Amino acid sequence: MCAAVGDLTINLASLRENYRRIDSLTAVNCETACAVKANAYGLGMVELSKALHQAGARSFFVATLQEGVDLRKILPDAIIYVLNGFWSQEVSQYRHHHLIPVLNSPDDIAAIKNEGDLPCALHFDTGMNRLGLTLSEAENVNTEGLNIVLVMSHFSSSDDAQSGHTQRQFELFSQIRARYKNVKASLCNSSGVFRGAEKHFDLTRPGLALYGGNPTPETKNPMLPVVSLNAPVLQIHHVKKGETAGYNQTYRFEDDANVAVIGAGYADGLLRSLSNCGVFYWKSYALPIRGRVSMDLVICDLSAVPESEYPVLYDMVEIIGVHQSIDDIAKSANTISYEIITSLGYRYSRSYID
Amino acid sequence: MCAAVGDLTINLASLRENYRRIDSLTAVNCETACAVKANAYGLGMVELSKALHQAGARSFFVATLQEGVDLRKILPDAIIYVLNGFWSQEVSQYRHHHLIPVLNSPDDIAAIKNEGDLPCALHFDTGMNRLGLTLSEAENVNTEGLNIVLVMSHFSSSDDAQSGHTQRQFELFSQIRARYKNVKASLCNSSGVFRGAEKHFDLTRPGLALYGGNPTPETKNPMLPVVSLNAPVLQIHHVKKGETAGYNQTYRFEDDANVAVIGAGYADGLLRSLSNCGVFYWKSYALPIRGRVSMDLVICDLSAVPESEYPVLYDMVEIIGVHQSIDDIAKSANTISYEIITSLGYRYSRSYID
Repeated sequence: MCAAVGDLTINLASLRENYRRIDSLTAVNCETACAVKANAYGLGMVELSKALHQAGARSFFVATLQEGVDLRKILPDAIIYVLNGFWSQEVSQYRHHHLIPVLNSPDDIAAIKNEGDLPCALHFDTGMNRLGLTLSEAENVNTEGLNIVLVMSHFSSSDDAQSGHTQRQFELFSQIRARYKNVKASLCNSSGVFRGAEKHFDLTRPGLALYGGNPTPETKNPMLPVVSLNAPVLQIHHVKKGETAGYNQTYRFEDDANVAVIGAGYADGLLRSLSNCGVFYWKSYALPIRGRVSMDLVICDLSAVPESEYPVLYDMVEIIGVHQSIDDIAKSANTISYEIITSLGYRYSRSYID
Repeated sequence: MCAAVGDLTINLASLRENYRRIDSLTAVNCETACAVKANAYGLGMVELSKALHQAGARSFFVATLQEGVDLRKILPDAIIYVLNGFWSQEVSQYRHHHLIPVLNSPDDIAAIKNEGDLPCALHFDTGMNRLGLTLSEAENVNTEGLNIVLVMSHFSSSDDAQSGHTQRQFELFSQIRARYKNVKASLCNSSGVFRGAEKHFDLTRPGLALYGGNPTPETKNPMLPVVSLNAPVLQIHHVKKGETAGYNQTYRFEDDANVAVIGAGYADGLLRSLSNCGVFYWKSYALPIRGRVSMDLVICDLSAVPESEYPVLYDMVEIIGVHQSIDDIAKSANTISYEIITSLGYRYSRSYID
C-alpha cells in the first residue's frame, strides 16, 4: 500500500437520504432531478449517480455533452439533460446516446431546427445574464416544430433568503412558463426548493444540497454531511519564538511552538486562500494553518493540543468532518462549498461507503 | 467529436528549451534535476517527464511514493527522489522501484535505520519550518550507517530578490553541508538558480520555471511560455443598463452591454477569486469577467470589441496565451502561477505539441 495525500470518504447512504429529504419537500407529482455536472461536483459522477438512481432519481443534469455520454454508460434508462447548449455538429451524439440538449440562445434553436423530433429543453434567463434566452428573445422566439420537453430558468440568489431577486425571477418565469402549457417546467436549484412550494413547478434540480452543502445558510443545515477528508501528519517540528512559517515568511511565531506538517496542499484542492486563516482538527483541538499553504504541504499549529495528546507520524488530521463542514472550510477560504468540493484533487485515496 | 470545456495545450519544445536554459545557468558539473510532483504541477507527469528526459534530465523529484511508482514506469533509468518522508511500512516499494526517500525528521531516520543500504537523501530545514530536520536536530542527528546520497534544503523566499532570508538560508545550509563532504548537495528551486552561482552546489531542482512561470518576478520572464488555454463562447447575450451578472448579483452594468458566456468555470480551475477581476482575451481585446465565476461558466464583457469583430458561437477566447501569462492570471486571482496550473481541470481537451 501507498500512503496517499489523504483519505477522502463519500457517504452514499447520506447522499441517498439527502435525496429523499429534498424530494419529500415537494409535491408527489413534482420530480426531483439531480445536478451531477462537473463529476458530481468533484465527488465522482459514476458512484454518486448510481446511488442517486437507487434512491429514486430518474432525471439528471450535466454541463457538457461528454458528461452526458459518460453518464449514459452508467444509467441506461435515465433522462439526461445537457445544460451548456447545442452545437449542430454534435447532433448525432445527442441522438445516439438519447441526450436532451438545453437550448440557451436563438443560435441553439436555429441549430436544432432541422432536427425537429429531437427532444430538447428551453432555458430562459430571468436574471443572471448567463446562459438562457433573454426576456426579449423569449418574446420573439419561434419554437414551431421543436420537440420541447422542458422549460426552465435558474435562480441567481436563492441561497440569500433576504434577496428580492428570487421572487422577481419566479414571477418572470411564471409568465414565460404560461406560454408552454403542456410542457414541464423547472426553476429550483438546491436553495430554491426551500423558498416556497409555488416555485417547485414540475421538476427541481438540486445539486449542492445532495452533497451536504447548506441550502439555507440563514439557518441550521437541514442536510446530512456526505464528504469527509483527512490528511496525514508527516512531521512534528519545534519552532522558536520569532521564527516564521512557510513561503515568503508570512507568519511569525510570537512564542515557541510545535507545528504539524500535513501532507496535502493546494495541488489537492486545499485552496491557497486558506493560508494563515484556515483550520484543521486533531481530536477536538483546532490546528490553525500557519503561513502559506504549499503545493503538497500545510503547516498547522499544535499549540492548543496538550503534548501528551500529540499526533504521531501518519496520524490523520481532519480537514472536513465532524468539526468542520464543507461550508465552514469554504468560509475560511473566502469562497463557497461548491468550489471546495469541485477542487478536491486526484491524489486522495477515495472511498465510497454505505 | 465532443466540444470540451476548452483546449489546454502544453508546448513540449518550449519545456525542453526551458530545461536547457536553466541548465546553462549552472556549471557543467552541476546537475539540473526536475520537480515533477503533483502531476508535473498539473500539466501531465507522463508527457512532461519524458520530454525533460529527452532534454537531458536524469534526476526527478516527486512528493509522494505513489508519484515515484508512477514515474518509474515511464523512466526506467531515472534517479527519483520522494520528498514527503519515509514510512517504514513502505520500504519494500522503495526498494522494488529504486526510489530514494528524502528523510525529513528524526522519525524518518529512525524508520530507515534497519535499511542501511537503501540510498536516501537528508533534508534540513533552514528557514521554512515545514519539512526537514531543524537546526538543533541537524546538530544532534546520528546518521551512522545510513547510505546518504544527497543533502538538501529548500528556499522560502528566493522569488523575492530583496529578501535577506535567501542569503541566511544559504549560509546555514553551507555550514550543514560541510559536515557531509562526500555527499552531493542541493539547495536551489527555480528562483534560487538565479540568485548566485555559489548557491547552486551539485544539483538544482527547478519546477515552475520549466513550466514557464517567471522565476525572477522583479524582471522580464527569462523562460518561454509552455501553457496555453482557450475556452469556447457558448452564447452572446445582450444586457440592459442596470441589470446584473451572475450569482448574487455582484456586478451591475452601468450601460447597455453585450456579454459572452464562456464554457468553463471553477470546476476547471478558473479560480472563483477571478470573479469581477479576471480578464480573458478575444483577438487582442480584453474581456473583463463580470460577476462571479460559476462552476462551468464565466460571463465576459464584450464592450471593448467592435461588433463587427464579435466572436461567434464556439469561437475560442484566450485564458492563457500570448496576451495573458500564467503569472498574469495568477495576479488577477490573488494567487501564484503554481496554483493556476495545478488547478487546471480534467475537462479540457489536452494537447502536447512539439
